[in-house]
Amino acid sequence: MECGLLFSAGKDSSISALLLEEFYDVTLVTAHFGVTDDWKHARAAAGELGFPFTDIELDTEIVDTAVERMYEDGYPRAGIQMIHEAALEAVASEYDVIADGTRRDDRVPTISRAVAQSLEDRHDVDYIAPLSGFGRGAIDRLVDAHLTVESGASETIQKGDYETELRERIRTRWGQTTVTDIFPAHEQTRVTGRR
Amino acid sequence: MECGLLFSAGKDSSISALLLEEFYDVTLVTAHFGVTDDWKHARAAAGELGFPFTDIELDTEIVDTAVERMYEDGYPRAGIQMIHEAALEAVASEYDVIADGTRRDDRVPTISRAVAQSLEDRHDVDYIAPLSGFGRGAIDRLVDAHLTVESGASETIQKGDYETELRERIRTRWGQTTVTDIFPAHEQTRVTGRR
Repeated sequence: MECGLLFSAGKDSSISALLLEEFYDVTLVTAHFGVTDDWKHARAAAGELGFPFTDIELDTEIVDTAVERMYEDGYPRAGIQMIHEAALEAVASEYDVIADGTRRDDRVPTISRAVAQSLEDRHDVDYIAPLSGFGRGAIDRLVDAHLTVESGASETIQKGDYETELRERIRTRWGQTTVTDIFPAHEQTRVTGRR
Repeated sequence: MECGLLFSAGKDSSISALLLEEFYDVTLVTAHFGVTDDWKHARAAAGELGFPFTDIELDTEIVDTAVERMYEDGYPRAGIQMIHEAALEAVASEYDVIADGTRRDDRVPTISRAVAQSLEDRHDVDYIAPLSGFGRGAIDRLVDAHLTVESGASETIQKGDYETELRERIRTRWGQTTVTDIFPAHEQTRVTGRR
């Protein structure tokens, strides 16, 4: 069975891919908005992990609605949730099985049982969150055993997650100070291959 | 890493074992109460799946508290939840990583994020529920692809789940009518091997 797994080149979506590869024909799918070319870092990481890759461009309208929400809120949570749900909807129209790297302990994005069921019913797909039964410690130990990663400040690590493009879109509209207000610097990791 | 996975010879715990086997040294663990020898059916199924097996006998006090609760309630849910949590506690004192086959759509047993975190903190273990990110349809398709099963009425299928012993304990204490009131007949499946 073909499975489209949302992929950011981060640890969670990479471990999700490893958990599913014995059971599905997994394609890693990076959603982006055409704001920057950072999705190409995800394509490179997918190659290093040995998975087929595709990108999917979401409507500009979605990124603008999301950054306006973040600007109003002063923090990114609700906007990231909106984008993640839009990305799942887009993947659901292309694959019979869709998946993401959301974890048990994630605050955002998070897909409730009701949202999962709604996605499955409306698109006639299976939605799988392979890490939703794993805690932080278990995932860290799987990462140590199976992946190589590089870490650094969120502004310097070149990933394919939503954050890079969101930062750029906010910078264009409201300036760098607003970027730093909404996304305080934090440690990011990018997967560079299998161990 | 050694992982003790609670095992009933049913579909959910069997698929959980397959999902984890590339990442952990999985031992299938069947909890029982010394009421019947039905746990030996689970041992046979574990052999057919190719996993190491062990049984773990819970205190008789637990089964009595649970069936009294079921008798008061008139349905089994809360009692089964009590037993499942007691079984996880017992496995947590033997393994560094513990797991079960609870699913996203399960009503019982269900392990909330708070209960999971509490288990992990008190016993210094990782608790993993590999199916908690899978819906019913996805699991059915994995079962069809990877397992052979036999199905039948719940009274005739010889499994190693809690239900068989609970029925027997209730029969001894209150008679067959009470068994049928608390556990109406339903379809059960037992895994017989890999496809």
